[in-house]
Amino acid sequence: MDLTKITSPSFLKNMNKKELESLASDIRSFLIEKCSITGGHIGPNLGVVELTIALHKAFNSPKDKFLWDVGHQAYVHKILTGRADQFDTLRQFKGLSGFPKRSESEHDEWETGHSSTSLSAAMGMAIARDIKKEKNYVIPIIGDGALTGGMALEALNHIGHEKKNMIVILNDNEMSIAPNVGALHNILGRLRTAKEYSKAKEELEVLLKKIPVLGGKVASTAERVKDSLKYLVVSGVFFEEMGFKYLGPIDGHDFDALDKSLEYAKKVKGPVIVHVITKKGKGYKPAEEDTVGTWHGTGPYKMETGDFVKSSAKGPSWSGLVSESVRKLMEDDERIVAITPAMPVGSKMEGIQRSFPDRFFDVGIAEQHATTMAAGIATQAMKPYLAIYSTFLQRAYDQVLHDIARPNLNVFIGIDRAGLVGADGETHQGVFDIAFLRHLPNMVLMMPKDENEGQHMVKTAIEYNDGPIALRYPRGNGYGVPMDKEMKTIPIGSWEVLKEGKDVAILTFGTTIPTAMDAAKELEQAGIDVKVVNARFIKPLDVDMLHELLVKKVPILTIEEAVLQGGFGSAVLEFASENKYLDVEIDRMGIPDQFIEQGSVDLLLEEIHLTKEEAVERLRKLANSNKKVGTKLV
Amino acid sequence: MDLTKITSPSFLKNMNKKELESLASDIRSFLIEKCSITGGHIGPNLGVVELTIALHKAFNSPKDKFLWDVGHQAYVHKILTGRADQFDTLRQFKGLSGFPKRSESEHDEWETGHSSTSLSAAMGMAIARDIKKEKNYVIPIIGDGALTGGMALEALNHIGHEKKNMIVILNDNEMSIAPNVGALHNILGRLRTAKEYSKAKEELEVLLKKIPVLGGKVASTAERVKDSLKYLVVSGVFFEEMGFKYLGPIDGHDFDALDKSLEYAKKVKGPVIVHVITKKGKGYKPAEEDTVGTWHGTGPYKMETGDFVKSSAKGPSWSGLVSESVRKLMEDDERIVAITPAMPVGSKMEGIQRSFPDRFFDVGIAEQHATTMAAGIATQAMKPYLAIYSTFLQRAYDQVLHDIARPNLNVFIGIDRAGLVGADGETHQGVFDIAFLRHLPNMVLMMPKDENEGQHMVKTAIEYNDGPIALRYPRGNGYGVPMDKEMKTIPIGSWEVLKEGKDVAILTFGTTIPTAMDAAKELEQAGIDVKVVNARFIKPLDVDMLHELLVKKVPILTIEEAVLQGGFGSAVLEFASENKYLDVEIDRMGIPDQFIEQGSVDLLLEEIHLTKEEAVERLRKLANSNKKVGTKLV
Repeated sequence: MDLTKITSPSFLKNMNKKELESLASDIRSFLIEKCSITGGHIGPNLGVVELTIALHKAFNSPKDKFLWDVGHQAYVHKILTGRADQFDTLRQFKGLSGFPKRSESEHDEWETGHSSTSLSAAMGMAIARDIKKEKNYVIPIIGDGALTGGMALEALNHIGHEKKNMIVILNDNEMSIAPNVGALHNILGRLRTAKEYSKAKEELEVLLKKIPVLGGKVASTAERVKDSLKYLVVSGVFFEEMGFKYLGPIDGHDFDALDKSLEYAKKVKGPVIVHVITKKGKGYKPAEEDTVGTWHGTGPYKMETGDFVKSSAKGPSWSGLVSESVRKLMEDDERIVAITPAMPVGSKMEGIQRSFPDRFFDVGIAEQHATTMAAGIATQAMKPYLAIYSTFLQRAYDQVLHDIARPNLNVFIGIDRAGLVGADGETHQGVFDIAFLRHLPNMVLMMPKDENEGQHMVKTAIEYNDGPIALRYPRGNGYGVPMDKEMKTIPIGSWEVLKEGKDVAILTFGTTIPTAMDAAKELEQAGIDVKVVNARFIKPLDVDMLHELLVKKVPILTIEEAVLQGGFGSAVLEFASENKYLDVEIDRMGIPDQFIEQGSVDLLLEEIHLTKEEAVERLRKLANSNKKVGTKLV
Repeated sequence: MDLTKITSPSFLKNMNKKELESLASDIRSFLIEKCSITGGHIGPNLGVVELTIALHKAFNSPKDKFLWDVGHQAYVHKILTGRADQFDTLRQFKGLSGFPKRSESEHDEWETGHSSTSLSAAMGMAIARDIKKEKNYVIPIIGDGALTGGMALEALNHIGHEKKNMIVILNDNEMSIAPNVGALHNILGRLRTAKEYSKAKEELEVLLKKIPVLGGKVASTAERVKDSLKYLVVSGVFFEEMGFKYLGPIDGHDFDALDKSLEYAKKVKGPVIVHVITKKGKGYKPAEEDTVGTWHGTGPYKMETGDFVKSSAKGPSWSGLVSESVRKLMEDDERIVAITPAMPVGSKMEGIQRSFPDRFFDVGIAEQHATTMAAGIATQAMKPYLAIYSTFLQRAYDQVLHDIARPNLNVFIGIDRAGLVGADGETHQGVFDIAFLRHLPNMVLMMPKDENEGQHMVKTAIEYNDGPIALRYPRGNGYGVPMDKEMKTIPIGSWEVLKEGKDVAILTFGTTIPTAMDAAKELEQAGIDVKVVNARFIKPLDVDMLHELLVKKVPILTIEEAVLQGGFGSAVLEFASENKYLDVEIDRMGIPDQFIEQGSVDLLLEEIHLTKEEAVERLRKLANSNKKVGTKLV
């Protein structure tokens, strides 16, 4: 059928199994084709085609509330709620979001991006429903990976206690982004292989009926056994202990099984977990065969072969550069232990995992645990390296503060995907880390200008033994600069002059350095002489260089791809104020006080005026307004 | 015995049961007496006297590592490791910490304060031990309340998977701070009442041996039943499912039982949970009889009667004032739902709980869940009120950012214990919230000058429907100012002039307003005319008033009881920079870039020069340096 003609999911109600299967097939073809051009989270979505159709058939959205945990598996939901025609703009600037979005549709009641939020939000919706005495179903759909996130477990604990009506769909594909880890994963594994659960239960009931003939004392034990029927090894004992009714496991690609289970779940009083087994990438061979997570989210690919369209990047990926540098140092430094919360692929740590399996830990989606575990390792005179995306480090703010910075432990945090990340949009932009780390006492925070400085900063971080140190690096690839053979350390808090100049100075770091250099070059022709400083240490600042600049009263422009409020530029303002440098003009460029939506990084930078043109304009003004004063750096 | 003579726990090794009991009795008397003078966490410590003695007898600290979760139950541990002589200084400035402290003793390997960190840290220590091929025991001691914190559950999931050797002591007193909630609590309840666990297990084995006589088909079921022996309703099935060996329940006040279990636990390969039942307040009647948590942590009390020494506060407690104001508004506004993460007593929400049991939720120690649940409620056009201590809101930074601020939901956050808190020390100071909330788009953040303005701000927050709004208020009591009968709203972003003045201006809010007023008064006599502004909105700023001040180039002093880096003062610097107010001197007073230790708030303020004297000094300098310029507010 023509999916772009769908306006509401109500058309599903009268479809028979054959029609549903045909629809599923159409949706798969549509997704495989569309994502081959735009890229996207194709694997997770191919896995939930039948499940999503069955959910929309069984329930009445938007009266009934679907909450898509993480949210990158909501493409089918978007198609069924009338958004197929927007898939050409998927994850693009001003286009269809890759996640549920309240502003997009009344069917998207819960916005996501970060993992493990759906159960808590669902509990909130169930509370509101019951207070308002409304009748509807609340249906969080959560993956087995997201379930191990601490807040999901907190929510399970609370929901099981309060006994609110709620239907939790556990979408179990045995992977989150990478293959899953954790005891819960093992529990699910046992459940998955237990197809004959109900049969065993029936048999046991027969057995128990016969037991009383065995006599008095044994009979009372038998009573206890009866009570514990639900605790048979093959049952959903974990969930039943947590206060949920457990249904499953159910084949998530079988419409009949799904229909039966969902209809049954609707009748259950209190919270119920429907354990649905799905296959990531179902129906597209390259994605089905993926065992490590390559097809979780992709760029464009050739539909026929599944070959990825090669990027034109010159340099190594930043994640790879940093991980590989750490791996090299691990060869000679046995103190180093590498940790990732579920991102061995994203953070390109496969090399470390292969070379040092005993010193590599993927803890699953559990940023808090990963961070405090790193602190625990550091107390034993070891050197933990925690690789974590900037946006996910937000989850561990208190752990960095309370467990690492406060006791001043030697933890090296690699902050991956720092700055704008593009297509994943506002839930994933790594633009807050400077603002939330800079005010932590004892913290060292740095960002390299290129991949060569990047490897030296890795060395610097490993050798630094005076407390926590964080290295932020962007998404994407380096510039292909020549690499020094030997890694070396960089003095903590030292900046570097990239270009001398006497009229006005730029302080910047990381990805905005090229912008600064280009702006300086352009102004050269206009007779304005711009100094450019690689302010590679965001904390501590290079106070000698700052004094030198400020004492000469030359105007300063700071540029950062991070939020302005409380950011690096503010640190410079604070320094100037504390040191009574009154009449020096300091201007700041960075990310304004708003959430930044999806789009290519270049388009986003333009949208928020974080461009060479803006820098030129501001530098010109600074230089002109300073003419009256006439101060120069000489 | 004379506890102050203890230098190491090794003396316990040769003690017999009678001697141990006598020691326990001595420790109890010591604690009850000492805490009656200093105050402290008497309840939790009286509960773990025997357990702590038994642990130090069974293990060899510091080679074996004890990790005290939360840490306020480590007084007995401190006594046994040679710190009894310092108890007169408990929780006082430069005195003995109320929590484990690495700088205090080699026996304190893990520092705590916040809940639920011990399992992750223990996992880190176990990893380090195994890499270094060392032999020692790692023994986290965690309460049943702390166990429901998300990161503890994340850690359980990882530990159970990795199967590292670790002995987790589950100190189950059926309360965290307030009585516990949650499904896990119910599980523990079932375990507690199952004294005859092993007996039932034995009986069942006998039964099963007889089953084969029943014939073929049934026999295979019986095999399955055998496998699932451990899943009897009375067993620690939850923990065994999570990959732990479960031992218990054990009477935590019986030395023989403790000894037997700990010795057994030492022999177990892989992670083991020892479930120990203790009684909070054991041995001191007023504390034993406490059912709500009054005796969790206390100020000084009369030892004989358990009567608390009355505070001399004139005004209502801030927590009570805010909660009571919310309660009043709940009478007419059915949208309001109140939420606390385990602090119904601390946040004084008993009135709300009593009046509106259906609209009050204590979710246990689960700050992340509480916050996102509030967001979920807000999506349904309700108005959640989340009461949370400033220091614990750190745990929910990502949830505030990603689930509340980003979708701009109407959640009212009451930030309790904002500013310095005193005796709990650096893990509990509420000094970061401005720095970690101010950079969030859509956030409104305010702090009242007194309890009357406090009630109006509650009304303001409830009536505000344009996104998240947070009200921070200090620990302790108001001033006893007259209260308006009617609550009224205050325009968002509006400051208030408390005193006119033309030479220099102070911008401040909350607890530092009296400091500012006193300084202004003192300077009046010196002929310096100070304007004092109640900058009650930290975000958004009162831009009209700021323009008015800055345009007249009068020097400004900001004062805040919060970290300087990225704080309110920085917001003023940012505003001045953005609006090109160049030659106005702005000076900032606040908390420097260091963690602030324990002590009375007055002493701490003196230590960091956040005093009237310092303000007077700085204002004087500002006024004098401005004389050359001669600008004045007129």
